[in-house]
Amino acid sequence: MGELNHVVIVGGTHGNERIGIHLEKKFSQRPALVQRPSFSTQVLLGNPEATAAGVRYLDRDLNRSFERDRLQNQNLTSYEDRQARQIAQKIESSSHAPVDVIVDMHSTTSNVGLTVIIDQEEGFALKLAAYLQQQNSSIKVYSTAGAGRNRDALRSLAKFGFCIEVGPVAQGVLDADLFQKTEALVYMILDYLEQYNRHQVSLLNCSLTLYRHLGTIDYPRNEHREIQAMIHPQLQSKDYQPLYPGDPMFLTFDGETMSYEGTEIVYPMFINEAAYYEKEIAMCLTQKAQIIV
Amino acid sequence: MGELNHVVIVGGTHGNERIGIHLEKKFSQRPALVQRPSFSTQVLLGNPEATAAGVRYLDRDLNRSFERDRLQNQNLTSYEDRQARQIAQKIESSSHAPVDVIVDMHSTTSNVGLTVIIDQEEGFALKLAAYLQQQNSSIKVYSTAGAGRNRDALRSLAKFGFCIEVGPVAQGVLDADLFQKTEALVYMILDYLEQYNRHQVSLLNCSLTLYRHLGTIDYPRNEHREIQAMIHPQLQSKDYQPLYPGDPMFLTFDGETMSYEGTEIVYPMFINEAAYYEKEIAMCLTQKAQIIV
Repeated sequence: MGELNHVVIVGGTHGNERIGIHLEKKFSQRPALVQRPSFSTQVLLGNPEATAAGVRYLDRDLNRSFERDRLQNQNLTSYEDRQARQIAQKIESSSHAPVDVIVDMHSTTSNVGLTVIIDQEEGFALKLAAYLQQQNSSIKVYSTAGAGRNRDALRSLAKFGFCIEVGPVAQGVLDADLFQKTEALVYMILDYLEQYNRHQVSLLNCSLTLYRHLGTIDYPRNEHREIQAMIHPQLQSKDYQPLYPGDPMFLTFDGETMSYEGTEIVYPMFINEAAYYEKEIAMCLTQKAQIIV
Repeated sequence: MGELNHVVIVGGTHGNERIGIHLEKKFSQRPALVQRPSFSTQVLLGNPEATAAGVRYLDRDLNRSFERDRLQNQNLTSYEDRQARQIAQKIESSSHAPVDVIVDMHSTTSNVGLTVIIDQEEGFALKLAAYLQQQNSSIKVYSTAGAGRNRDALRSLAKFGFCIEVGPVAQGVLDADLFQKTEALVYMILDYLEQYNRHQVSLLNCSLTLYRHLGTIDYPRNEHREIQAMIHPQLQSKDYQPLYPGDPMFLTFDGETMSYEGTEIVYPMFINEAAYYEKEIAMCLTQKAQIIV
């Protein structure tokens, strides 16, 4: 065995993201697809009850339920709190514990194409990301370093957690093209991990384009927290494209344009993600950076 | 008053279709937008509880809950059955009863653009449809005549029921462009009704393109009713385009193409609608017809 012994691939952390759900099912039925010689791979359906019901979650967002305090608090009895504890136990009691890498497969209604989320900007994650971008230049890398996702997300149970986000696809919809692209991306990650264990990785001065999380923007709301404007048609689907000060950002229901009032060029993503209305997020803002790995 | 006295505009019959929900709210707050001199207009939020929860429905599809037997059966106590009875009572006890026209605003994850559904192919509906297509040639008219929608849908409470379907838009997402297009389409319908009452309609040998409902196609499933294939990428988003015998229809999870095995050219629509997986509908097949109104 190499340095990485145990990899977990997760689908259905959100029960209405069908691409990950059906890939998890495929990998479960044909484990050879995700096995590699130098490490063991486990496949996991994150939220079975939400998947059966076709909803994101039953009681609370499972992918925000993995803070260590929550996991240790037996008084929390929501379905997702119980499921989070069960997943943590399962992973930690596994014969190959601790788990080295978790790849969590998600989808989004926003136009993020093929995105890999890294939660820490450290050597291993950056090299993997650079490798993926080298293999497929359309892959976007979104860094949430500092945003706490390495504390509350399912993938935070591993030493190295990666999230795949593909879009746009509606909740509850299987998109064949994005299904195949997600599958190929999982294999690409597994192949990299195999190369890593075999010390065959050769990335010399490899350039990586990173989109670094800056913060979130909410919809304009009134005093009752009701939405007062929509994503502007000129911004809709423009994930990862530069937004300049003064550019249209929202459109009121009466057709008035509201502009981006910042002073800095930013790169929005997760624009108009259905599940983020309740989180009061209309989009995430990022900074684009080019780094050498 | 003219021949048409009472019009009802409905949004949120499905609680996760935000375009109709926010248009209903806009019209409620500014009723003058939908008032016309010759008839009264009432605005209605179809499913308030599902809208609050952001789901299509709580217990059962409200828009399949209006059969007369159901409405009269007080033993049916699901939320949507109770809501259907309340809507029927409200509409029928209104000072302007009976209601002449209902326009129900929906959205779909399928690529139907701007679609108007008529449930009966009779003079009034066909003339309205022809007028709309004359005003905006991109409007598609889908006829469900014979499919029972004039018995179970909310709009069946009126003498003339029309459904607006716009897409593609994910469930739970507000799309500004489709919001504005739906709003314009509602005004176009109201303007036609006003012209009708004033006897100012002049449609002479006006051509109308109809897509007539033929039937539905389910996803390939195994003995456990689990889906075995996805909409083929070459068919995805190709609503209202001709499908020829032998054309790709589904793609299995292993990448095998399954072809359309019919012998007739058909025009699929509602391709990959999220809410129809549970109804075992992958798409509706239609026949294209050109008629003179």
